[in-house]
Amino acid sequence: MHLLSFRLPGSGPAWGVRDGGRVAVAGDTAPPDVATLLELPAAERDAVLAALAARAGDGVALDEVELLAPIPRPRRNVFAVGANYRGHVEESEHSAGPPASPIFFTKATTTVTGPGPVAVDAGLTTRVDWEVELAVVLGSGGRHLSREDAADAVFGYTTANDLSARDQQHGRPEGQWFLGKSLDGFCPLGPWLVTKDELPDPGALRLTLTVNGVVKQDSTTADMVFDVPALLAELSRFVTLHPGDVLLTGTPSGVGDARTPPEYLVPGDEVVAQVEGIGPLATTIVDGAR
Amino acid sequence: MHLLSFRLPGSGPAWGVRDGGRVAVAGDTAPPDVATLLELPAAERDAVLAALAARAGDGVALDEVELLAPIPRPRRNVFAVGANYRGHVEESEHSAGPPASPIFFTKATTTVTGPGPVAVDAGLTTRVDWEVELAVVLGSGGRHLSREDAADAVFGYTTANDLSARDQQHGRPEGQWFLGKSLDGFCPLGPWLVTKDELPDPGALRLTLTVNGVVKQDSTTADMVFDVPALLAELSRFVTLHPGDVLLTGTPSGVGDARTPPEYLVPGDEVVAQVEGIGPLATTIVDGAR
Repeated sequence: MHLLSFRLPGSGPAWGVRDGGRVAVAGDTAPPDVATLLELPAAERDAVLAALAARAGDGVALDEVELLAPIPRPRRNVFAVGANYRGHVEESEHSAGPPASPIFFTKATTTVTGPGPVAVDAGLTTRVDWEVELAVVLGSGGRHLSREDAADAVFGYTTANDLSARDQQHGRPEGQWFLGKSLDGFCPLGPWLVTKDELPDPGALRLTLTVNGVVKQDSTTADMVFDVPALLAELSRFVTLHPGDVLLTGTPSGVGDARTPPEYLVPGDEVVAQVEGIGPLATTIVDGAR
Repeated sequence: MHLLSFRLPGSGPAWGVRDGGRVAVAGDTAPPDVATLLELPAAERDAVLAALAARAGDGVALDEVELLAPIPRPRRNVFAVGANYRGHVEESEHSAGPPASPIFFTKATTTVTGPGPVAVDAGLTTRVDWEVELAVVLGSGGRHLSREDAADAVFGYTTANDLSARDQQHGRPEGQWFLGKSLDGFCPLGPWLVTKDELPDPGALRLTLTVNGVVKQDSTTADMVFDVPALLAELSRFVTLHPGDVLLTGTPSGVGDARTPPEYLVPGDEVVAQVEGIGPLATTIVDGAR
Protein backbone atom coordinates (compact mmCIF):
# COMPACT_ATOMS: atom_id res chain seq x y z
CA MET A 1 0.00 0.00 0.00
CA HIS A 2 1.19 3.54 -0.78
CA LEU A 3 0.37 6.35 1.70
CA LEU A 4 0.72 9.95 0.50
CA SER A 5 0.55 13.39 2.05
CA PHE A 6 -0.38 16.19 -0.35
CA ARG A 7 -2.27 19.38 -1.01
CA LEU A 8 -5.22 19.67 -3.34
CA PRO A 9 -5.30 22.97 -5.25
CA GLY A 10 -6.49 25.71 -2.90
CA SER A 11 -6.66 23.40 0.14
CA GLY A 12 -4.63 22.64 3.23
CA PRO A 13 -2.58 19.48 3.74
CA ALA A 14 -4.31 16.12 3.43
CA TRP A 15 -3.32 12.49 3.15
CA GLY A 16 -4.57 9.39 1.45
CA VAL A 17 -3.90 6.03 -0.17
CA ARG A 18 -2.81 5.60 -3.78
CA ASP A 19 -3.96 3.04 -6.33
CA GLY A 20 -2.19 3.62 -9.63
CA GLY A 21 -3.06 7.12 -10.81
CA ARG A 22 -5.83 7.76 -8.23
CA VAL A 23 -5.72 8.72 -4.56
CA ALA A 24 -8.43 8.11 -1.93
CA VAL A 25 -8.42 11.19 0.30
CA ALA A 26 -8.70 10.57 4.05
CA GLY A 27 -11.83 12.35 5.28
CA ASP A 28 -12.95 14.01 8.48
CA THR A 29 -13.47 10.74 10.32
CA ALA A 30 -9.89 9.58 9.67
CA PRO A 31 -6.80 10.75 11.63
CA PRO A 32 -5.77 14.24 10.45
CA ASP A 33 -2.31 13.20 9.25
CA VAL A 34 -0.02 10.21 8.76
CA ALA A 35 1.87 10.81 12.03
CA THR A 36 -1.40 10.56 13.98
CA LEU A 37 -2.48 7.51 11.96
CA LEU A 38 0.74 5.72 12.91
CA GLU A 39 0.04 6.34 16.61
CA LEU A 40 -3.25 4.42 16.46
CA PRO A 41 -3.39 0.82 17.68
CA ALA A 42 -2.45 -1.42 14.75
CA ALA A 43 -5.92 -2.93 14.28
CA GLU A 44 -7.56 0.49 14.17
CA ARG A 45 -4.90 1.80 11.79
CA ASP A 46 -5.32 -1.20 9.50
CA ALA A 47 -9.10 -0.68 9.38
CA VAL A 48 -8.67 2.98 8.36
CA LEU A 49 -6.22 2.01 5.64
CA ALA A 50 -8.31 -0.88 4.32
CA ALA A 51 -11.36 1.38 3.98
CA LEU A 52 -9.30 3.95 2.09
CA ALA A 53 -7.63 1.39 -0.16
CA ALA A 54 -11.05 -0.02 -1.13
CA ARG A 55 -12.07 3.28 -2.66
CA ALA A 56 -8.72 4.51 -4.03
CA GLY A 57 -9.75 3.73 -7.61
CA ASP A 58 -12.53 6.33 -7.32
CA GLY A 59 -10.27 8.97 -5.75
CA VAL A 60 -8.75 12.19 -7.06
CA ALA A 61 -6.18 12.08 -9.84
CA LEU A 62 -2.60 11.69 -8.59
CA ASP A 63 -1.36 14.25 -11.10
CA GLU A 64 -3.68 16.90 -9.63
CA VAL A 65 -2.17 16.83 -6.14
CA GLU A 66 0.96 18.57 -4.88
CA LEU A 67 2.93 15.88 -3.07
CA LEU A 68 4.33 16.62 0.39
CA ALA A 69 6.71 14.45 2.40
CA PRO A 70 4.78 11.36 3.60
CA ILE A 71 5.16 12.73 7.15
CA PRO A 72 5.40 16.48 6.49
CA ARG A 73 6.19 17.42 10.08
CA PRO A 74 7.65 14.61 12.18
CA ARG A 75 7.15 14.72 15.95
CA ARG A 76 10.90 14.93 16.48
CA ASN A 77 14.12 15.15 14.53
CA VAL A 78 14.80 12.60 11.82
CA PHE A 79 17.34 10.01 12.98
CA ALA A 80 20.19 9.36 10.57
CA VAL A 81 23.43 7.40 10.33
CA GLY A 82 26.75 8.28 8.76
CA ALA A 83 29.28 6.03 7.05
CA ASN A 84 26.95 3.04 6.74
CA TYR A 85 27.80 1.73 3.27
CA ARG A 86 31.12 0.03 2.59
CA GLY A 87 31.45 1.72 -0.79
CA HIS A 88 30.84 5.17 0.70
CA VAL A 89 33.30 4.55 3.55
CA GLU A 90 35.96 3.60 0.98
CA GLU A 91 35.42 6.67 -1.20
CA SER A 92 35.38 9.19 1.68
CA GLU A 93 38.55 10.89 2.83
CA HIS A 94 36.70 11.68 6.06
CA SER A 95 36.10 8.02 6.97
CA ALA A 96 38.52 5.82 8.88
CA GLY A 97 37.07 2.57 7.58
CA PRO A 98 33.77 0.88 8.40
CA PRO A 99 32.71 2.04 11.88
CA ALA A 100 32.65 -0.51 14.70
CA SER A 101 29.24 0.79 15.75
CA PRO A 102 26.70 3.01 13.95
CA ILE A 103 27.29 6.78 13.86
CA PHE A 104 23.94 8.36 14.72
CA PHE A 105 23.01 12.00 14.28
CA THR A 106 19.75 13.88 13.64
CA LYS A 107 18.31 16.27 11.09
CA ALA A 108 16.01 19.06 12.33
CA THR A 109 12.27 18.63 11.63
CA THR A 110 12.47 21.71 9.40
CA THR A 111 14.69 19.81 6.94
CA VAL A 112 11.74 17.65 5.87
CA THR A 113 10.19 18.53 2.52
CA GLY A 114 8.44 16.71 -0.29
CA PRO A 115 9.35 16.40 -3.96
CA GLY A 116 10.03 19.80 -5.53
CA PRO A 117 12.28 22.78 -4.93
CA VAL A 118 14.98 23.15 -2.26
CA ALA A 119 16.34 26.69 -1.84
CA VAL A 120 20.10 27.04 -1.34
CA ASP A 121 21.75 30.27 -0.18
CA ALA A 122 25.24 30.43 -1.66
CA GLY A 123 26.13 32.85 1.12
CA LEU A 124 25.80 29.94 3.55
CA THR A 125 27.04 26.97 1.51
CA THR A 126 28.58 26.40 -1.90
CA ARG A 127 29.11 22.65 -1.39
CA VAL A 128 25.66 21.06 -1.40
CA ASP A 129 25.85 17.33 -1.93
CA TRP A 130 23.33 14.56 -2.65
CA GLU A 131 22.81 11.25 -0.79
CA VAL A 132 20.12 8.76 -1.79
CA GLU A 133 18.99 6.75 1.24
CA LEU A 134 16.41 4.19 2.28
CA ALA A 135 14.24 5.86 4.96
CA VAL A 136 12.50 3.67 7.52
CA VAL A 137 9.23 4.79 9.16
CA LEU A 138 8.18 3.09 12.38
CA GLY A 139 4.70 1.83 13.17
CA SER A 140 5.49 0.97 16.78
CA GLY A 141 8.30 1.67 19.19
CA GLY A 142 9.96 0.62 22.38
CA ARG A 143 13.35 0.35 24.02
CA HIS A 144 15.93 -2.45 23.92
CA LEU A 145 14.41 -3.98 20.78
CA SER A 146 15.79 -7.29 19.56
CA ARG A 147 16.49 -7.65 15.83
CA GLU A 148 13.13 -9.40 15.49
CA ASP A 149 11.27 -6.71 17.48
CA ALA A 150 13.00 -4.03 15.41
CA ALA A 151 11.90 -5.61 12.13
CA ASP A 152 8.35 -5.86 13.51
CA ALA A 153 8.38 -2.16 14.52
CA VAL A 154 8.84 -1.02 10.90
CA PHE A 155 5.69 0.29 9.24
CA GLY A 156 7.19 1.03 5.85
CA TYR A 157 9.78 2.78 3.74
CA THR A 158 10.26 5.88 1.66
CA THR A 159 13.13 7.42 -0.29
CA ALA A 160 15.28 10.15 1.24
CA ASN A 161 17.83 12.56 -0.15
CA ASP A 162 20.09 13.40 2.80
CA LEU A 163 21.30 16.74 1.45
CA SER A 164 24.49 18.01 3.07
CA ALA A 165 26.40 21.30 3.16
CA ARG A 166 29.88 19.76 3.05
CA ASP A 167 31.64 23.05 3.79
CA GLN A 168 29.64 23.43 7.01
CA GLN A 169 29.78 19.72 7.88
CA HIS A 170 33.54 19.39 7.57
CA GLY A 171 34.73 22.99 7.99
CA ARG A 172 33.37 23.64 11.47
CA PRO A 173 34.94 22.43 14.71
CA GLU A 174 34.29 18.81 15.76
CA GLY A 175 32.52 17.85 12.51
CA GLN A 176 28.95 19.08 12.36
CA TRP A 177 26.87 16.09 11.38
CA PHE A 178 23.85 17.92 12.78
CA LEU A 179 24.28 21.46 11.51
CA GLY A 180 25.77 20.63 8.11
CA LYS A 181 22.75 18.42 7.35
CA SER A 182 20.02 20.48 9.04
CA LEU A 183 19.47 23.42 6.72
CA ASP A 184 15.80 24.06 5.95
CA GLY A 185 14.61 21.69 3.22
CA PHE A 186 17.68 19.45 3.34
CA CYS A 187 15.67 16.23 3.84
CA PRO A 188 13.45 15.58 0.82
CA LEU A 189 11.29 12.48 1.50
CA GLY A 190 8.90 10.71 -0.80
CA PRO A 191 7.17 10.36 -3.10
CA TRP A 192 5.10 8.13 -0.78
CA LEU A 193 5.34 5.73 2.11
CA VAL A 194 5.33 2.07 0.99
CA THR A 195 4.17 -0.48 3.56
CA LYS A 196 6.72 -3.14 4.43
CA ASP A 197 4.72 -6.03 2.95
CA GLU A 198 5.70 -4.68 -0.47
CA LEU A 199 9.42 -4.62 0.39
CA PRO A 200 9.97 -7.83 2.35
CA ASP A 201 13.79 -7.65 2.17
CA PRO A 202 15.09 -4.11 2.89
CA GLY A 203 18.60 -5.55 2.60
CA ALA A 204 18.32 -6.22 -1.16
CA LEU A 205 17.04 -2.98 -2.72
CA ARG A 206 18.72 -1.10 -5.54
CA LEU A 207 19.31 2.62 -4.90
CA THR A 208 20.04 5.10 -7.67
CA LEU A 209 20.48 8.84 -7.93
CA THR A 210 20.81 11.00 -11.01
CA VAL A 211 21.76 14.66 -11.40
CA ASN A 212 20.38 16.22 -14.59
CA GLY A 213 19.84 12.69 -15.91
CA VAL A 214 23.42 11.48 -15.27
CA VAL A 215 23.74 8.50 -12.90
CA LYS A 216 25.79 9.42 -9.82
CA GLN A 217 24.85 6.69 -7.35
CA ASP A 218 23.86 3.10 -8.23
CA SER A 219 24.20 0.54 -5.50
CA THR A 220 22.21 -1.77 -3.25
CA THR A 221 21.19 -1.83 0.40
CA ALA A 222 23.16 -5.10 0.62
CA ASP A 223 26.27 -2.88 0.93
CA MET A 224 25.13 -1.50 4.34
CA VAL A 225 27.58 -1.93 7.22
CA PHE A 226 24.67 -2.22 9.69
CA ASP A 227 21.32 -3.41 8.29
CA VAL A 228 17.90 -1.97 9.19
CA PRO A 229 17.16 -4.27 12.16
CA ALA A 230 20.70 -3.75 13.52
CA LEU A 231 20.40 0.05 13.32
CA LEU A 232 17.03 0.12 15.06
CA ALA A 233 18.11 -2.36 17.75
CA GLU A 234 21.26 -0.34 18.48
CA LEU A 235 19.46 3.03 18.55
CA SER A 236 16.80 1.61 20.88
CA ARG A 237 19.45 0.67 23.46
CA PHE A 238 19.67 4.43 24.12
CA VAL A 239 16.41 5.99 22.96
CA THR A 240 12.81 4.79 23.35
CA LEU A 241 11.52 4.68 19.78
CA HIS A 242 8.03 5.88 18.84
CA PRO A 243 5.56 5.21 16.01
CA GLY A 244 6.20 7.80 13.31
CA ASP A 245 9.94 7.99 13.95
CA VAL A 246 11.93 8.28 10.72
CA LEU A 247 15.42 6.78 10.33
CA LEU A 248 17.68 7.44 7.34
CA THR A 249 19.98 4.46 6.89
CA GLY A 250 23.02 5.93 5.14
CA THR A 251 24.11 6.48 1.57
CA PRO A 252 26.10 4.31 -0.85
CA SER A 253 29.11 5.45 -2.87
CA GLY A 254 28.91 8.12 -5.52
CA VAL A 255 28.45 11.35 -3.56
CA GLY A 256 29.72 14.56 -5.12
CA ASP A 257 32.21 15.38 -2.38
CA ALA A 258 34.20 12.19 -3.04
CA ARG A 259 34.54 12.76 -6.82
CA THR A 260 37.66 14.01 -8.62
CA PRO A 261 37.18 16.88 -9.00
CA PRO A 262 34.40 17.25 -6.40
CA GLU A 263 30.91 18.04 -7.69
CA TYR A 264 28.27 20.08 -5.90
CA LEU A 265 24.68 21.04 -6.66
CA VAL A 266 23.84 24.48 -8.05
CA PRO A 267 20.56 26.24 -8.81
CA GLY A 268 18.80 24.59 -11.74
CA ASP A 269 20.07 21.11 -10.99
CA GLU A 270 17.48 18.30 -11.04
CA VAL A 271 18.20 15.43 -8.66
CA VAL A 272 16.21 12.20 -8.81
CA ALA A 273 16.70 9.73 -5.97
CA GLN A 274 15.12 6.31 -6.20
CA VAL A 275 14.90 3.20 -4.06
CA GLU A 276 13.69 0.04 -5.77
CA GLY A 277 9.98 -0.54 -5.23
CA ILE A 278 9.27 2.98 -3.97
CA GLY A 279 9.40 5.53 -6.76
CA PRO A 280 11.34 8.54 -7.97
CA LEU A 281 11.89 11.43 -5.54
CA ALA A 282 12.66 14.52 -7.65
CA THR A 283 14.32 17.62 -6.18
CA THR A 284 15.14 20.87 -7.95
CA ILE A 285 17.83 23.13 -6.49
CA VAL A 286 16.74 26.77 -6.62
CA ASP A 287 18.54 29.98 -5.75
CA GLY A 288 17.79 30.96 -2.17
CA ALA A 289 20.24 33.86 -1.93
CA ARG A 290 19.12 36.44 0.59
CA MET B 1 6.40 34.82 36.12
CA HIS B 2 6.99 31.11 36.74
CA LEU B 3 5.26 28.54 34.46
CA LEU B 4 5.10 24.94 35.64
CA SER B 5 4.03 21.62 34.21
CA PHE B 6 3.00 19.00 36.75
CA ARG B 7 0.65 16.22 37.77
CA LEU B 8 -1.87 16.46 40.55
CA PRO B 9 -2.26 13.21 42.50
CA GLY B 10 -4.34 10.79 40.42
CA SER B 11 -4.55 13.15 37.41
CA GLY B 12 -2.95 13.54 34.02
CA PRO B 13 -0.44 16.26 33.13
CA ALA B 14 -1.43 19.90 33.68
CA TRP B 15 0.29 23.25 33.72
CA GLY B 16 -0.07 26.52 35.57
CA VAL B 17 1.50 29.65 37.01
CA ARG B 18 3.23 29.80 40.39
CA ASP B 19 3.03 32.49 43.04
CA GLY B 20 5.16 31.52 46.03
CA GLY B 21 3.85 28.23 47.38
CA ARG B 22 0.63 28.19 45.32
CA VAL B 23 -0.06 27.28 41.68
CA ALA B 24 -2.98 28.46 39.52
CA VAL B 25 -3.94 25.45 37.37
CA ALA B 26 -4.71 26.20 33.71
CA GLY B 27 -8.27 25.05 33.03
CA ASP B 28 -10.20 23.69 30.09
CA THR B 29 -10.38 27.04 28.30
CA ALA B 30 -6.59 27.47 28.33
CA PRO B 31 -4.17 25.76 25.91
CA PRO B 32 -3.64 22.12 26.94
CA ASP B 33 0.12 22.45 27.55
CA VAL B 34 2.98 24.95 27.62
CA ALA B 35 4.16 24.05 24.11
CA THR B 36 0.73 24.95 22.71
CA LEU B 37 0.61 28.11 24.83
CA LEU B 38 3.92 29.26 23.33
CA GLU B 39 2.50 28.84 19.82
CA LEU B 40 -0.28 31.37 20.47
CA PRO B 41 0.05 34.94 19.22
CA ALA B 42 1.89 36.91 21.92
CA ALA B 43 -1.11 39.06 22.93
CA GLU B 44 -3.33 36.01 23.35
CA ARG B 45 -0.62 34.19 25.30
CA ASP B 46 -0.08 37.17 27.58
CA ALA B 47 -3.82 37.38 28.33
CA VAL B 48 -3.94 33.69 29.31
CA LEU B 49 -0.94 34.13 31.59
CA ALA B 50 -2.19 37.35 33.19
CA ALA B 51 -5.51 35.71 34.04
CA LEU B 52 -3.71 32.76 35.63
CA ALA B 53 -1.24 34.93 37.54
CA ALA B 54 -4.11 36.94 39.00
CA ARG B 55 -5.48 33.87 40.75
CA ALA B 56 -2.26 32.01 41.56
CA GLY B 57 -2.51 32.89 45.25
CA ASP B 58 -5.73 30.87 45.47
CA GLY B 59 -4.30 27.89 43.61
CA VAL B 60 -3.24 24.42 44.68
CA ALA B 61 -0.28 23.99 47.01
CA LEU B 62 3.05 23.70 45.18
CA ASP B 63 4.18 20.91 47.49
CA GLU B 64 1.19 18.78 46.48
CA VAL B 65 2.08 18.63 42.78
CA GLU B 66 4.57 16.34 41.05
CA LEU B 67 6.69 18.62 38.89
CA LEU B 68 7.35 17.69 35.27
CA ALA B 69 9.73 19.39 32.87
CA PRO B 70 8.26 22.81 31.94
CA ILE B 71 7.79 21.45 28.39
CA PRO B 72 7.41 17.73 29.07
CA ARG B 73 7.40 16.71 25.42
CA PRO B 74 9.02 19.21 23.05
CA ARG B 75 7.89 19.26 19.43
CA ARG B 76 11.38 18.35 18.29
CA ASN B 77 14.77 17.48 19.70
CA VAL B 78 16.37 19.81 22.22
CA PHE B 79 19.12 21.90 20.62
CA ALA B 80 22.40 21.95 22.53
CA VAL B 81 25.96 23.25 22.19
CA GLY B 82 29.25 21.72 23.23
CA ALA B 83 32.44 23.42 24.45
CA ASN B 84 30.79 26.79 25.09
CA TYR B 85 32.44 27.87 28.36
CA ARG B 86 36.09 28.90 28.46
CA GLY B 87 36.63 27.12 31.77
CA HIS B 88 35.15 23.87 30.45
CA VAL B 89 37.16 24.04 27.24
CA GLU B 90 40.34 24.43 29.31
CA GLU B 91 39.60 21.48 31.59
CA SER B 92 38.60 19.06 28.82
CA GLU B 93 41.17 16.80 27.18
CA HIS B 94 38.69 16.43 24.31
CA SER B 95 38.67 20.15 23.46
CA ALA B 96 41.13 21.86 21.13
CA GLY B 97 40.55 25.33 22.59
CA PRO B 98 37.54 27.63 22.31
CA PRO B 99 35.72 26.77 19.06
CA ALA B 100 35.68 29.33 16.26
CA SER B 101 31.96 28.72 15.80
CA PRO B 102 29.37 26.99 18.02
CA ILE B 103 29.24 23.18 18.07
CA PHE B 104 25.55 22.29 17.81
CA PHE B 105 24.02 18.88 18.44
CA THR B 106 20.62 17.63 19.63
CA LYS B 107 19.19 15.53 22.43
CA ALA B 108 16.22 13.26 21.62
CA THR B 109 12.81 14.38 22.91
CA THR B 110 12.77 11.28 25.13
CA THR B 111 15.68 12.68 27.18
CA VAL B 112 13.42 15.35 28.67
CA THR B 113 12.31 14.73 32.24
CA GLY B 114 11.43 16.81 35.27
CA PRO B 115 12.97 16.87 38.74
CA GLY B 116 13.24 13.36 40.22
CA PRO B 117 14.75 10.02 39.31
CA VAL B 118 16.84 9.18 36.24
CA ALA B 119 17.42 5.48 35.66
CA VAL B 120 20.90 4.41 34.55
CA ASP B 121 21.70 0.95 33.19
CA ALA B 122 25.30 0.11 34.08
CA GLY B 123 25.24 -2.39 31.22
CA LEU B 124 25.06 0.57 28.83
CA THR B 125 27.16 3.20 30.62
CA THR B 126 29.32 3.42 33.71
CA ARG B 127 30.48 7.01 33.07
CA VAL B 128 27.43 9.22 33.62
CA ASP B 129 28.42 12.85 34.05
CA TRP B 130 26.63 16.03 35.13
CA GLU B 131 26.47 19.40 33.33
CA VAL B 132 24.49 22.35 34.72
CA GLU B 133 23.27 24.59 31.88
CA LEU B 134 21.11 27.62 31.24
CA ALA B 135 18.25 26.43 28.98
CA VAL B 136 16.56 28.96 26.70
CA VAL B 137 12.91 28.50 25.64
CA LEU B 138 11.69 30.41 22.60
CA GLY B 139 8.43 32.35 22.37
CA SER B 140 8.76 33.09 18.68
CA GLY B 141 10.96 31.89 15.84
CA GLY B 142 12.25 32.66 12.41
CA ARG B 143 15.30 32.30 10.23
CA HIS B 144 18.34 34.56 9.86
CA LEU B 145 17.69 36.29 13.18
CA SER B 146 19.86 39.26 14.12
CA ARG B 147 21.21 39.42 17.68
CA GLU B 148 18.35 41.76 18.53
CA ASP B 149 15.71 39.52 16.92
CA ALA B 150 17.22 36.54 18.72
CA ALA B 151 16.98 38.25 22.11
CA ASP B 152 13.37 39.18 21.33
CA ALA B 153 12.54 35.57 20.38
CA VAL B 154 13.37 34.32 23.89
CA PHE B 155 10.34 33.60 26.06
CA GLY B 156 12.19 32.53 29.18
CA TYR B 157 14.72 30.28 30.86
CA THR B 158 14.93 27.11 32.88
CA THR B 159 17.74 25.02 34.37
CA ALA B 160 19.03 21.95 32.54
CA ASN B 161 21.28 19.08 33.53
CA ASP B 162 22.83 17.86 30.27
CA LEU B 163 23.58 14.33 31.45
CA SER B 164 26.15 12.52 29.35
CA ALA B 165 27.35 8.93 29.01
CA ARG B 166 31.04 9.77 28.51
CA ASP B 167 32.00 6.20 27.54
CA GLN B 168 29.45 6.27 24.70
CA GLN B 169 30.14 9.91 23.77
CA HIS B 170 33.90 9.49 23.45
CA GLY B 171 34.29 5.75 22.91
CA ARG B 172 32.28 5.42 19.70
CA PRO B 173 33.50 6.36 16.22
CA GLU B 174 33.41 10.06 15.24
CA GLY B 175 32.41 11.26 18.74
CA GLN B 176 28.75 10.75 19.48
CA TRP B 177 27.45 14.06 20.75
CA PHE B 178 23.95 12.88 19.89
CA LEU B 179 23.90 9.29 21.12
CA GLY B 180 26.06 9.79 24.21
CA LYS B 181 23.69 12.51 25.43
CA SER B 182 20.38 11.05 24.23
CA LEU B 183 19.67 8.23 26.66
CA ASP B 184 16.11 8.28 28.02
CA GLY B 185 15.86 10.79 30.88
CA PHE B 186 19.25 12.42 30.22
CA CYS B 187 17.82 15.96 30.00
CA PRO B 188 16.30 16.98 33.35
CA LEU B 189 14.70 20.43 32.98
CA GLY B 190 13.09 22.61 35.63
CA PRO B 191 11.88 23.24 38.16
CA TRP B 192 9.92 25.84 36.17
CA LEU B 193 10.12 28.21 33.23
CA VAL B 194 11.00 31.78 34.29
CA THR B 195 9.94 34.56 31.91
CA LYS B 196 12.78 36.69 30.59
CA ASP B 197 11.62 39.89 32.31
CA GLU B 198 12.88 38.32 35.56
CA LEU B 199 16.33 37.56 34.10
CA PRO B 200 17.14 40.63 32.01
CA ASP B 201 20.83 39.73 31.59
CA PRO B 202 21.30 36.04 30.72
CA GLY B 203 25.02 36.78 30.42
CA ALA B 204 25.49 37.40 34.15
CA LEU B 205 23.90 34.45 35.95
CA ARG B 206 25.63 32.23 38.49
CA LEU B 207 25.39 28.48 37.83
CA THR B 208 26.08 25.86 40.47
CA LEU B 209 25.83 22.11 40.72
CA THR B 210 26.26 19.86 43.72
CA VAL B 211 26.53 16.08 44.02
CA ASN B 212 25.43 14.75 47.42
CA GLY B 213 25.80 18.29 48.74
CA VAL B 214 29.38 18.81 47.52
CA VAL B 215 29.87 21.72 45.08
CA LYS B 216 31.18 20.47 41.72
CA GLN B 217 30.37 23.38 39.40
CA ASP B 218 30.25 27.08 40.37
CA SER B 219 30.62 29.59 37.56
CA THR B 220 28.75 32.27 35.65
CA THR B 221 27.20 32.57 32.21
CA ALA B 222 29.69 35.41 31.62
CA ASP B 223 32.21 32.65 30.84
CA MET B 224 30.31 31.58 27.69
CA VAL B 225 32.29 31.58 24.44
CA PHE B 226 29.11 32.46 22.48
CA ASP B 227 26.33 34.22 24.38
CA VAL B 228 22.61 33.48 24.09
CA PRO B 229 21.83 35.92 21.23
CA ALA B 230 24.92 34.77 19.33
CA LEU B 231 23.95 31.10 19.64
CA LEU B 232 20.38 31.70 18.46
CA ALA B 233 21.46 33.97 15.60
CA GLU B 234 23.99 31.40 14.38
CA LEU B 235 21.60 28.44 14.67
CA SER B 236 18.92 30.38 12.79
CA ARG B 237 21.24 30.82 9.78
CA PHE B 238 20.63 27.10 9.16
CA VAL B 239 17.36 26.17 10.86
CA THR B 240 14.04 28.05 11.06
CA LEU B 241 13.40 28.34 14.79
CA HIS B 242 9.95 27.81 16.31
CA PRO B 243 8.15 28.89 19.48
CA GLY B 244 8.70 26.19 22.09
CA ASP B 245 12.19 25.30 20.85
CA VAL B 246 14.60 24.57 23.70
CA LEU B 247 18.33 25.38 23.50
CA LEU B 248 20.89 24.25 26.08
CA THR B 249 23.75 26.74 26.11
CA GLY B 250 26.70 24.68 27.34
CA THR B 251 28.24 23.88 30.71
CA PRO B 252 30.97 25.59 32.74
CA SER B 253 34.01 23.87 34.26
CA GLY B 254 33.74 21.23 36.94
CA VAL B 255 32.34 18.19 35.14
CA GLY B 256 33.21 14.77 36.51
CA ASP B 257 35.02 13.53 33.42
CA ALA B 258 37.67 16.27 33.70
CA ARG B 259 38.52 15.58 37.36
CA THR B 260 41.58 13.72 38.65
CA PRO B 261 40.62 11.00 39.16
CA PRO B 262 37.44 11.21 37.05
CA GLU B 263 34.13 11.08 38.91
CA TYR B 264 30.89 9.61 37.61
CA LEU B 265 27.37 9.34 38.96
CA VAL B 266 26.13 6.10 40.52
CA PRO B 267 22.73 4.99 41.83
CA GLY B 268 21.81 6.88 44.99
CA ASP B 269 23.60 10.10 43.99
CA GLU B 270 21.63 13.33 44.42
CA VAL B 271 22.50 16.05 41.92
CA VAL B 272 21.21 19.60 42.33
CA ALA B 273 21.67 21.99 39.41
CA GLN B 274 20.84 25.64 39.85
CA VAL B 275 20.88 28.77 37.71
CA GLU B 276 20.58 32.07 39.57
CA GLY B 277 17.02 33.35 39.60
CA ILE B 278 15.44 30.07 38.54
CA GLY B 279 15.53 27.47 41.31
CA PRO B 280 17.04 24.13 42.23
CA LEU B 281 16.63 21.23 39.81
CA ALA B 282 17.14 18.02 41.79
CA THR B 283 17.90 14.68 40.13
CA THR B 284 18.38 11.30 41.79
CA ILE B 285 20.29 8.60 39.96
CA VAL B 286 18.57 5.23 40.31
CA ASP B 287 19.56 1.75 39.20
CA GLY B 288 18.06 1.00 35.80
CA ALA B 289 19.85 -2.31 35.20
CA ARG B 290 17.84 -4.59 32.95
